[in-house]
Amino acid sequence: MGVPCGGTFLTTGWVLPASKSLEQSRFPNTTHESLNATLHTTLVITTKLVLPTPAKPILPVQTGEQAQQEEQSSGMTIFFSLLVLAICIILVHLLIRYRLHFLPESVAVVSLGILMGAVIKIIEFKKLANWKEEEMFRPNMFFLLLLPPIIFESGYSLHKGNFFQNIGSITLFAVFGTAISAFVVGGGIYFLGQADVISKLNMTDSFAFGSLISAVDPVATIAIFNALHVDPVLNMLVFGESILNDAVSIVLTNTAEGLTRKNMSDVSGWQTFLQALGYFLKMFFGSAALGTLTGLISALVLKHIDLRKTPSLEFGMMIIFAYLPYGLAEGISLSGIMAILFSGIVMSHYTHHNLSPVTQILMQQTLRSVAFMCETCVFAFLGLSIFSFPHKFEISFVIWCIVLVLFGRAVNIFPLSYLLNFFRDHKITPKMMFIMWFSGLRGAIPYALSLHLDLEPLEKRQLIGTTTIVIVLFTILLLGGSTMPLIRLVDIEDTKARRRNKKDVNLSKTEKMGHTVEAEHLSELTEEEYEAHYIRRQDLKGFMWLDVKYLNPFFTRRLTQEDLHHGRIQMKTLTNKWYEEVRQGPSGSEDDEQELL
Amino acid sequence: MGVPCGGTFLTTGWVLPASKSLEQSRFPNTTHESLNATLHTTLVITTKLVLPTPAKPILPVQTGEQAQQEEQSSGMTIFFSLLVLAICIILVHLLIRYRLHFLPESVAVVSLGILMGAVIKIIEFKKLANWKEEEMFRPNMFFLLLLPPIIFESGYSLHKGNFFQNIGSITLFAVFGTAISAFVVGGGIYFLGQADVISKLNMTDSFAFGSLISAVDPVATIAIFNALHVDPVLNMLVFGESILNDAVSIVLTNTAEGLTRKNMSDVSGWQTFLQALGYFLKMFFGSAALGTLTGLISALVLKHIDLRKTPSLEFGMMIIFAYLPYGLAEGISLSGIMAILFSGIVMSHYTHHNLSPVTQILMQQTLRSVAFMCETCVFAFLGLSIFSFPHKFEISFVIWCIVLVLFGRAVNIFPLSYLLNFFRDHKITPKMMFIMWFSGLRGAIPYALSLHLDLEPLEKRQLIGTTTIVIVLFTILLLGGSTMPLIRLVDIEDTKARRRNKKDVNLSKTEKMGHTVEAEHLSELTEEEYEAHYIRRQDLKGFMWLDVKYLNPFFTRRLTQEDLHHGRIQMKTLTNKWYEEVRQGPSGSEDDEQELL
Repeated sequence: MGVPCGGTFLTTGWVLPASKSLEQSRFPNTTHESLNATLHTTLVITTKLVLPTPAKPILPVQTGEQAQQEEQSSGMTIFFSLLVLAICIILVHLLIRYRLHFLPESVAVVSLGILMGAVIKIIEFKKLANWKEEEMFRPNMFFLLLLPPIIFESGYSLHKGNFFQNIGSITLFAVFGTAISAFVVGGGIYFLGQADVISKLNMTDSFAFGSLISAVDPVATIAIFNALHVDPVLNMLVFGESILNDAVSIVLTNTAEGLTRKNMSDVSGWQTFLQALGYFLKMFFGSAALGTLTGLISALVLKHIDLRKTPSLEFGMMIIFAYLPYGLAEGISLSGIMAILFSGIVMSHYTHHNLSPVTQILMQQTLRSVAFMCETCVFAFLGLSIFSFPHKFEISFVIWCIVLVLFGRAVNIFPLSYLLNFFRDHKITPKMMFIMWFSGLRGAIPYALSLHLDLEPLEKRQLIGTTTIVIVLFTILLLGGSTMPLIRLVDIEDTKARRRNKKDVNLSKTEKMGHTVEAEHLSELTEEEYEAHYIRRQDLKGFMWLDVKYLNPFFTRRLTQEDLHHGRIQMKTLTNKWYEEVRQGPSGSEDDEQELL
Repeated sequence: MGVPCGGTFLTTGWVLPASKSLEQSRFPNTTHESLNATLHTTLVITTKLVLPTPAKPILPVQTGEQAQQEEQSSGMTIFFSLLVLAICIILVHLLIRYRLHFLPESVAVVSLGILMGAVIKIIEFKKLANWKEEEMFRPNMFFLLLLPPIIFESGYSLHKGNFFQNIGSITLFAVFGTAISAFVVGGGIYFLGQADVISKLNMTDSFAFGSLISAVDPVATIAIFNALHVDPVLNMLVFGESILNDAVSIVLTNTAEGLTRKNMSDVSGWQTFLQALGYFLKMFFGSAALGTLTGLISALVLKHIDLRKTPSLEFGMMIIFAYLPYGLAEGISLSGIMAILFSGIVMSHYTHHNLSPVTQILMQQTLRSVAFMCETCVFAFLGLSIFSFPHKFEISFVIWCIVLVLFGRAVNIFPLSYLLNFFRDHKITPKMMFIMWFSGLRGAIPYALSLHLDLEPLEKRQLIGTTTIVIVLFTILLLGGSTMPLIRLVDIEDTKARRRNKKDVNLSKTEKMGHTVEAEHLSELTEEEYEAHYIRRQDLKGFMWLDVKYLNPFFTRRLTQEDLHHGRIQMKTLTNKWYEEVRQGPSGSEDDEQELL
């Protein structure tokens, strides 16, 4: 490819595949046809212009053209994606504005995506024909750009909850529960395939699919649990579970993929299982340790290097530390998502308290915004992909999968809840178990993982992709949509509790999560939290004691009265600055001020 | 490439080039050798495993391997880049901490980059041999990821300065001054080349180089002018000039590149010039109009759609609008940088005042942090590139270029200042002109542009690249480093003024720019600003009047007393929240609280 060729016809021949591969590595965009037209014109011009001076090497000219085309193409892609995001933001705003709280945001955004996908399909039926090819290149973008902020924010927003008091139970639910679900779905698919009921998948592929489909979306779960005013400990357990669960599911899927790659499916059952277990434990604990370590280092760095007077440096450092474990973990073949989750938890527990007040607010708000946008992106493209992906829809496969998914979640929730009841003072009632089972919505992560999965014949890949999309849409649209009636149904018995807390049922995540400004996240539970705290205290006395006695003093800064004073002044200055700016008016002129007051 | 091939040898043959191109498209990273080793192992395994089952299509397995390798490689790249950034942040912090104000930050970061480049070169002499190849792929990253935040922040931080009152004079300096400098340098290079004094460059290439090298770095300029307590209008003029200048220089370079692409150099002089002028005007005004329009739309959207109660949505919307004009402009072949600069100015003038106080603070702080990190990235890689780039150092070319650059700046500053003196009450003294001329440091943008430039033989490209790096380093290290002695020298006559303002000379940008928290950017001039405002008022009465009377009311929100009250409460809640969190202590337990107080 690197050899310069002098002839005009050869040149033309050379440009075409190069520009093709360039287009393939791009995102789909609306100017596809116009790009080809430009390319064609360019080719003609180049061919014409080169003729009088054949000695001139033409290679770099093409490179220049390509670079420009690439930039132009990226430009339109960026514009189109941002436009979709902007429309989604307005949509979510309208949901909040008109108090359509019964409709979860994910449902709205996915529906919008489907609608836009349909519109694009109808308008430019032919032009977007090779969208599917470009679709294949996206998964890496998901895993490098979109997932890390979502997962880090999940970890970081655990901040105030009593996560650490419940870490044992949460881990049990997240690791064993997810593994049970993955085994049930994976095993079911495999044996149904062997029995010729549905398409055959080999063991590792079945297991990979079972794992990826077991990732429960925290968003819907939180909304439902908050709306129901359930036991705060139960709330924390399920919130923690659904967050850890994503990382566990990703690691499980990677494990299955790793086995496929090593062709371990040829080896006998137990050996495969042990190998998988070893790989999983290495990934899980290695990544968690790496994330924790990075988090602790960040706490020490921001404790001892006083960046508090220059918030821009401090905030920059936080962004770097947020992304650092991801890069490192991926670089040494561990799970970046797992590492970033643990580093997020540790950073919110220690590092966050070493920041200046401005940067604390900045971190929370920025993370929330960025995570929201990433999530919206994923949901919107999930909707769009319905019309762009080359689908292979097998009705029996889909139905069996939905049955298995629901069954897998049941086998996860009911026995583990029953088991936990032996150790709990606050028992989980059957009604609660039912809600927990029902709230296992699937979201962005299964979709991204299904795109990432490399199955051997293309058909299998399409089958898995289509089935995942259908399951995600089924759970989001049907289960998510029917949450409200269900809550009403269950709440009939609960009118007492409902009257006490005069709150509306609210399934909007942004409004719930975004209220850091007005109230602490999960802070509505504070009264009961102390109770819960008290109950759990004995179990976890060891870590809590260690944390309060040694870890906290070591990793976080002791605030002096002067620090407190300084922080208050910093915040006050910001408020006053804003106030004065407002009084001065946008143009800074006196006329305006007079008009304002 | 897409045809699956069954044989094992063919497979091996197919994998190698694919993985090669994959590596090339990646950033340089330290695990290069280990990656190759892994790849080799994989190849052996694949070859071995494929033998017993030759019927199995092996293509997707390789794709999976590639995807994993790609992720691993990106992981290490991300980790390495973040590490460099973290070290730079600590370095800048130390500069501020130990009051090494005489050393501009850019000098420190570039020096660190050089040092790290040397260390990497020494340690892994052989392993990084093909760094140069990968270097070539970076320019697009600069233009898509690193430049937009820098330029947008420049525009957005004009916020409070009396930029609009001086827009005529600033435009004169930025457009004509930069064009003069570009013509002088470009013409000089061309004629010296024709006279065989230095290497020959054709006219468009010379002009492209002249344009890119004319972009003056605002950073150093601001620092010097603030340190000197010069005339505030002059300060604003030069600050505005150096910011607009970057965009003008980029557009000029694109113009020259566009001409090269169309092979317009074959056409006679005047025709080329007119064509270039037309292209430049189209780029300049088209992009500026596009940016202004997007900015105005954002103002209207955020005025009428009340996102103020959900800061995460509001902030998300702002991020989208900040990047939107870039995508759109690049997509329709205009200058994204120019568009983003104007949209930044308009957004800070109108949209900013429609935001809730939290989002206002968020925008300023986040932009500052992100712009700082992008700039640091560019400077660090500038330093690193000295040891990685394949250089072509031509001593006579470099010396002549430096002479031309200094001469070009002189021909720009002195006549235009002289011209402006006819219309100004506050005359620009020769001493001031000298400082203006001296402060024309070159920074990140010429470097990025030189990487972006596609010159025809590789040698020319290397020559331009090397020369640009040398000039940037010369101006940053020598002119930037000698700024302090020069200020001392000039200030001897100025002791009166100096005693009046008891300020230290401070060349740290982060400390200067980052002090939004404590003081308004450029607000130290407020007393004199009114005076300046008064002088300029008559010239710009038209626009100012229009702005205050019609534009401001139309594009910005009228704040009611209720809004003010709400804003104050929002800020107060944030402060109290922080305060309570601190009092509760990191673990949220009572023990900790007791220890704290």
